Amino acid sequence: MKVSQTFIPTLREVPADAVIASHRLMFRAGLLRRLGNGLFAYLPLGLRSFRKVENIIREEMNATGSLELKPSVVVPGELWKESGRWTSMGESLLRVKNRLDADLVVSPTAEEAFTALVRDELSSYRQLPLSLYQINTKYRDEVRPRYGVMRGREFTMKDAYSFHADEESLDKAYNDMGRAYRRIFKRCGLTVIPVKADSGAMGGSGSEEFMVESEIGDNTLLLCKSCDYSANVEKAECRPDFSAPASAEDAKAAAASTPAITKIDTPDVKTIEELCAFLKCDAKNFIKTLIYRAENVELDLTGAPGHKAQGKTKGEALAEAFFAVLIRGDLDINETKLAAFLKAAEVNLASEADILRLTEAPVGFAGPVGLTSMPVIADFSVRAVSDGVTGALVKDLHYKHAAYGRDFEAWKCGDLRTVKAGDGCPLCGEELYEKKGNELGHIFKLGNKYSLSMNVHYLDANGKSQIPIMGCYGVGVDRTMASVIEEHHDEDGIIWPITVAPYHVIIVPVKYEGAVKETSDKLAGDLTREGIEVLLDDRDERPGVKFKDADLIGIPWRIVVGDKNLIGDKPKVEVKRRTEKENALVELGCVVQDLTGKIREELAAANPQP
Amino acid sequence: MKVSQTFIPTLREVPADAVIASHRLMFRAGLLRRLGNGLFAYLPLGLRSFRKVENIIREEMNATGSLELKPSVVVPGELWKESGRWTSMGESLLRVKNRLDADLVVSPTAEEAFTALVRDELSSYRQLPLSLYQINTKYRDEVRPRYGVMRGREFTMKDAYSFHADEESLDKAYNDMGRAYRRIFKRCGLTVIPVKADSGAMGGSGSEEFMVESEIGDNTLLLCKSCDYSANVEKAECRPDFSAPASAEDAKAAAASTPAITKIDTPDVKTIEELCAFLKCDAKNFIKTLIYRAENVELDLTGAPGHKAQGKTKGEALAEAFFAVLIRGDLDINETKLAAFLKAAEVNLASEADILRLTEAPVGFAGPVGLTSMPVIADFSVRAVSDGVTGALVKDLHYKHAAYGRDFEAWKCGDLRTVKAGDGCPLCGEELYEKKGNELGHIFKLGNKYSLSMNVHYLDANGKSQIPIMGCYGVGVDRTMASVIEEHHDEDGIIWPITVAPYHVIIVPVKYEGAVKETSDKLAGDLTREGIEVLLDDRDERPGVKFKDADLIGIPWRIVVGDKNLIGDKPKVEVKRRTEKENALVELGCVVQDLTGKIREELAAANPQP
Repeated sequence: MKVSQTFIPTLREVPADAVIASHRLMFRAGLLRRLGNGLFAYLPLGLRSFRKVENIIREEMNATGSLELKPSVVVPGELWKESGRWTSMGESLLRVKNRLDADLVVSPTAEEAFTALVRDELSSYRQLPLSLYQINTKYRDEVRPRYGVMRGREFTMKDAYSFHADEESLDKAYNDMGRAYRRIFKRCGLTVIPVKADSGAMGGSGSEEFMVESEIGDNTLLLCKSCDYSANVEKAECRPDFSAPASAEDAKAAAASTPAITKIDTPDVKTIEELCAFLKCDAKNFIKTLIYRAENVELDLTGAPGHKAQGKTKGEALAEAFFAVLIRGDLDINETKLAAFLKAAEVNLASEADILRLTEAPVGFAGPVGLTSMPVIADFSVRAVSDGVTGALVKDLHYKHAAYGRDFEAWKCGDLRTVKAGDGCPLCGEELYEKKGNELGHIFKLGNKYSLSMNVHYLDANGKSQIPIMGCYGVGVDRTMASVIEEHHDEDGIIWPITVAPYHVIIVPVKYEGAVKETSDKLAGDLTREGIEVLLDDRDERPGVKFKDADLIGIPWRIVVGDKNLIGDKPKVEVKRRTEKENALVELGCVVQDLTGKIREELAAANPQP
Repeated sequence: MKVSQTFIPTLREVPADAVIASHRLMFRAGLLRRLGNGLFAYLPLGLRSFRKVENIIREEMNATGSLELKPSVVVPGELWKESGRWTSMGESLLRVKNRLDADLVVSPTAEEAFTALVRDELSSYRQLPLSLYQINTKYRDEVRPRYGVMRGREFTMKDAYSFHADEESLDKAYNDMGRAYRRIFKRCGLTVIPVKADSGAMGGSGSEEFMVESEIGDNTLLLCKSCDYSANVEKAECRPDFSAPASAEDAKAAAASTPAITKIDTPDVKTIEELCAFLKCDAKNFIKTLIYRAENVELDLTGAPGHKAQGKTKGEALAEAFFAVLIRGDLDINETKLAAFLKAAEVNLASEADILRLTEAPVGFAGPVGLTSMPVIADFSVRAVSDGVTGALVKDLHYKHAAYGRDFEAWKCGDLRTVKAGDGCPLCGEELYEKKGNELGHIFKLGNKYSLSMNVHYLDANGKSQIPIMGCYGVGVDRTMASVIEEHHDEDGIIWPITVAPYHVIIVPVKYEGAVKETSDKLAGDLTREGIEVLLDDRDERPGVKFKDADLIGIPWRIVVGDKNLIGDKPKVEVKRRTEKENALVELGCVVQDLTGKIREELAAANPQP
């Protein structure tokens, strides 16, 4: 393809709102343009790389035996009402009323559509397992789209859904997908960090996120310096501090030498910071007491102190329950872990009114000593506090010398803290460190969340009606492509891995005329016939401009054809890798074979047989 | 691919709402399922054919030098407001308000998006011509979606837009596209009727529609029995009746022997039918007078009788003007032709109040004799009426013996009639006949409609700012695929042309075990290695069921592997074309080479080099 015959509007200027490299470079290299807020158009060069990423994903999906479908992007709202997500999904779901007042959804994901399709076709266990996918347009109504296609409103996602008769079959599909994902990212030249992720709003259990490190990542990852533990902070566990007593009995023993608990006046001193300043001591000496309101609690509360006082004991899940949650003053509660611990749909800090009602004190003076109006839950860190400061359930009063096991106890203890850099790895105890990451892919055991709510049934070998279990597996195509650029660029531009480069080779004639033109055209023709993808910069521009553009658009191999090198009985051209600074002079007679061999080798190495 | 490893849910039953063959067969053959009203999902088999149609279109577009982009499907409403189509498009445009109250459009077509993209990049005439396209999801909010994907709400369309400095360049692109379209449909095995189409709401002039004949077609086509004239009824011309006088003078001469014009009582007789019955004569003897209200009339009305009486002479386009339009009683006015004749944006029958005001008579008694309140326009057919009946501008009164040129004259005459079967071809005079057709593609000279309203400029060779002119070119992918099935099926199922068949060959082992299994597997492997696409029906079903399904899904070649034919020293298999009734026994040793040769030949013949 000649540059003059395609459309590559490169820019010297950086778009004002482009703060990350991929956003800047996708615009500057003429891969992408903006149509609206979070809405983009891929231009010819960008689309070529996009399709290569898409095809790598398609090949790996097909290799797992998953079957590609193409459902509509706009789907009836009815399907989302069946699953319950019409209401639970929040405002990022683009809901549309059409001219006939029918509810429609511009799909952000397609559990409903695939479940509905399978529901209508599934009758026998012999049809299972079934794995289906699409690579299709999605829309999520981001409030603040940014970072180009990294967080756009419309995007392309590969989403797969599998249906199974039993856990074993789901496990197999889940593991196959995990392997396919690793291959996808490897083939794209990406270094991903697979992390055990929290299940979030998706329901179910068993999931893995594929992250790339990113300065603007919206996930905080915790990684072990020693072993391969990695986790999203939302779900990261940690080893309890080594100093923490192993049990309530140990705690009591540790408290033996602590002075008796004493009330202290703390006029208008409510926060941990204020207390630290007032008492001139460290946050580690405090016991923070947070009152949480939990919704749809499935944890068995039988025998929980204070539970009856809340007057709600009936039913399987408790619609509303309050808990006093204790944690050491220097640590934070991880609400996702707390919700999981309580088996609650959601947890939120209680309102001031509820706190006043339940603790009989204003906000800032809650504490576990003598608290009987609700169950007390403690992070493991609190068991190690044998001489602490905590609220006294009275305005302007705190306790000092409060000791766990002696002055108060929790109904239940657990790992509820937000893990942070420096904490101990739950696997090996070594120190954890933090990275910011962006999610490129997610594999997930859904269980029967959708098959149950949407009434999917099949007959098992005994003719008995059963509900299949499901897995879902997503990869963002745009984000994967942008991440390739994040990982592979320098100050001059993109450095495409050969597998997803828009072209393999760019030929730059120093001046496109005479022998240089002829040689360039012949090289382009010869390489193309060998299956090499060639861009020929035939523009009437200064060599410097062409070199700058070649670096910017990041084609892996560059051939410069100059008139001086063509003189003599051994005409030569300059060959340079985008990754290297130095040219090599290669004899014209060898260059096609040489380069073809190298590129084929590189491609083969990058696309290993499964 | 083994049938057991893919997902082809064939049906014996015909879906209740499927009235056309393609709709029935796409469901029965397991190509498609329904997600909602006018919303569908392609299943694996259907998607394979869909992609092949898509790729044929892509190859032919690329061959014209058009460049593929991928804009978002959801675009800002602002773009549509700029072009004016936010309001003019009507309710088929799916407008969405997002959570931030921004207006969005789920694109039904993309003139706005492409024009906006080019606007931002175009600076010099050297960048022109520029031809860009996408193959992407579209949505049109059909009130009554039907016929499966033939008239769905969501669909996939290839839409191309070209930008030019002059008409000559636009003509070239337009003609190139016309040739590409002919090749696309030919490669898909479709017989299309290219017709000169009316420009409709798109504006501009110069357009061609590519139609396929269809019982449920929403276009009426007029074709000549003798020459290759073809037209959409909306724009079809015809030769004036041979009996018609050539001029107003001839008309006067023809009226010489007509008795003097006479008033007749016609109490409560208003319609042509009532008049025919009342006067016992043929509709051909009547002069129908219809009062039209036209909007934004650009026709020069200087000197038009009655025009000043309407009190609106200023400005370039007249916002509103009324016309008395005459046509022979047995014919109908073609409002599209009338609007074009008047250079009006729209024409509609006038309201009863306007008719009363302008003709001073109730509806049903308008006539040209003595009518001075507005310009009189006549279809050519009226000039031949030398002895006619027409309204007398008085309630319950008509004239008889009205003669054109003697008793009344039109300000202007033109071809305003709706052409119908039996009328004379405008090219050769031979009889026209009618067909119902569905539009698959449309190529169209847009002129500067979008570049003007959306402010696109470039500098010409003299450094002067100019507005480019545009063309647009669309093909419906789903509809093309469905049309292939409409044209290629029999009572047993689909008969795919080799170019768009989901697989080239289906291998049907009579029973998938032992030597039959081994032979089938080997054949599948050998053919696949030759690049032939093979489906292997490995199901544990009776041969009859497999044969029925093979016919239903319409794979072009079928190989039946039976145990009896494998016995002996010259083992054989049965080979059958889907189009033929009879099997051929082919030696196992030859079948791969034979079939590969035939299929390659067929493919090459169907994909001729440009």
